[in-house]
Amino acid sequence: MSVPTTTRAIVLTAPVRGEVTDKTFELKTVPLPALADGQVLLRLKAFSHEPALRHWIDADTDPARLYVPPVLAGEVVRSPSIGEVVASKSDKWAVGAKVAALAGWAEYAVVDEAMYPAHTTPSELPDSNLHSLDVLGWVGLTAYFGLFKVARPIKAGSTVVVSGAAGGVGSVVVQIAKHVLGARVVGIAGGKAKCDWVRGLGADECVDYKSATFADDLKAALPDYADVFFDNVGGAVLDNMLALVKRHGQILMCGAMDQYNGGELKLRNWSQVLFNRIDIQGFLFLDYADSNAEAVENLAKWVAEGKINGPNAHTVVANKLEEVPATWKRLYSGDSRGKLISKLE
Amino acid sequence: MSVPTTTRAIVLTAPVRGEVTDKTFELKTVPLPALADGQVLLRLKAFSHEPALRHWIDADTDPARLYVPPVLAGEVVRSPSIGEVVASKSDKWAVGAKVAALAGWAEYAVVDEAMYPAHTTPSELPDSNLHSLDVLGWVGLTAYFGLFKVARPIKAGSTVVVSGAAGGVGSVVVQIAKHVLGARVVGIAGGKAKCDWVRGLGADECVDYKSATFADDLKAALPDYADVFFDNVGGAVLDNMLALVKRHGQILMCGAMDQYNGGELKLRNWSQVLFNRIDIQGFLFLDYADSNAEAVENLAKWVAEGKINGPNAHTVVANKLEEVPATWKRLYSGDSRGKLISKLE
Repeated sequence: MSVPTTTRAIVLTAPVRGEVTDKTFELKTVPLPALADGQVLLRLKAFSHEPALRHWIDADTDPARLYVPPVLAGEVVRSPSIGEVVASKSDKWAVGAKVAALAGWAEYAVVDEAMYPAHTTPSELPDSNLHSLDVLGWVGLTAYFGLFKVARPIKAGSTVVVSGAAGGVGSVVVQIAKHVLGARVVGIAGGKAKCDWVRGLGADECVDYKSATFADDLKAALPDYADVFFDNVGGAVLDNMLALVKRHGQILMCGAMDQYNGGELKLRNWSQVLFNRIDIQGFLFLDYADSNAEAVENLAKWVAEGKINGPNAHTVVANKLEEVPATWKRLYSGDSRGKLISKLE
Repeated sequence: MSVPTTTRAIVLTAPVRGEVTDKTFELKTVPLPALADGQVLLRLKAFSHEPALRHWIDADTDPARLYVPPVLAGEVVRSPSIGEVVASKSDKWAVGAKVAALAGWAEYAVVDEAMYPAHTTPSELPDSNLHSLDVLGWVGLTAYFGLFKVARPIKAGSTVVVSGAAGGVGSVVVQIAKHVLGARVVGIAGGKAKCDWVRGLGADECVDYKSATFADDLKAALPDYADVFFDNVGGAVLDNMLALVKRHGQILMCGAMDQYNGGELKLRNWSQVLFNRIDIQGFLFLDYADSNAEAVENLAKWVAEGKINGPNAHTVVANKLEEVPATWKRLYSGDSRGKLISKLE
């Protein structure tokens, strides 16, 4: 094939204040840079949908306080991706290789051969194997580092609570905490169907945060409180959990889905942090790159052993490129299960 | 003198929901228990006023989640106190000894000879020396353990921010951080007069949270962000500081004055905990009792060297017993400086 010099892509029209709208993204044809040494051109096949993207496109977040550069107006929207090498100036990747890379919502992208910089091991991936976008990608590493590097040692019988339990990170946390660590696992998710799915992953209990009796249900599920609360949500879920984390227990702050569209976090139980000497630790998988090899090795082993991430542990949506933003927005409507992935038709 | 069998005392009428009112406390004459072996009867001379008392008398706090037993309806209101032994069944304390003890708002109290259980060294105290209620008492231990046991090592030139900087704990933190550790110290306090006082203690800067330009002033005072934020306040002060703590920096959660009367904590900047991998650690001096001797020795040395707590570093109010609750409430009106102490007339 001839090497393309442009690509259709979804670009950011302008940084966002408040809700993402139909005008936030637009489909354009943009130039592709010429390949430099050490780079490859990818034909992109699939994208994993990151809640964190909302931060990267936020109008009000000070770039100096963000952990990655923001996506600017006119730039292709950034996304972990799987693609096939169609042109190469890299000794590492030949044409035809299928790799994982941090690229964006486009048909083609030029990326450095290091790919997912320093956080996973790209490998030959059949189209049907999307694990490099989930359990061997960002969400797997986040769950792994949270449970093994940030949390104090979790023993069999420890109680681990995870919010967003039906989401990308949360669903992996549930499975590792239960099937690898032998913890008592209480998931928090929205709606009965999601809670049933979370129980199917192995959670001992799942509490529906949309229920009118949520606060009481959560308390009933935690008669001995939680050793570790792995929070992806913030909001009322966090507020209730402040009263239910054990003395000297831990909260891992991994996300705040409730705050992503500009919402204020309202806490009635903040004093519990003092009363019960709770530790709240914000963390990102990026900080544990030295342990990536260990993490990927273990995660791949647990997948092979059937302990985590069977074939139903992610949601794959076949999309045309122009449909990808709407699929990403499903993270906020909450109708996906596990890691949400768009696969280009 | 004959040993009294009753005492005038301030008792709690009922646990409190919302604001403390004139009906929350009442003056009564209550019986004193007979002395058991190992106990002494104190004639009380002075009380230190604890913001935490609001928690101990709260109607809605689950006792199982509190770090001390609550004060119940009809009980004498609990307070760290200084008193003189007027009757003794203790080999440790003879009649005439002046000691610090956890007693209550009363003229007399029966206490165990252990006194301030396991957290300070009672000693002979001339009436004019109230350090056992401030820098050698709870506030000194809290400041000391926060800075030396909870915070990661603070180096000369580190930036330490402390809220409630004109308060009991805050004023000791300012002085130790500046005069012992050599940190750059930024205090946060309410009003120009208090900020001037905090600068007088040694703070490099003090930012007035009552100013309309507070958020900008705080940002301007922290061009390189804060290594450690020692929070006694919560509220908007905490929210602003979430955006101003360094990457991988620390927040010591020591109090939440803004939340003490039932107020909700509202945070716009919660995501900063994630972006900048901030650690928030709730702590209480009670957990570091093994280091009490070390703390008291160092604190007393720094007092003797003139580094901390000169004679103006606390506010002493001469009170009749019935006036003591109103003095305690001055913690909330914010018109005291340093540790607020009632001395019985």
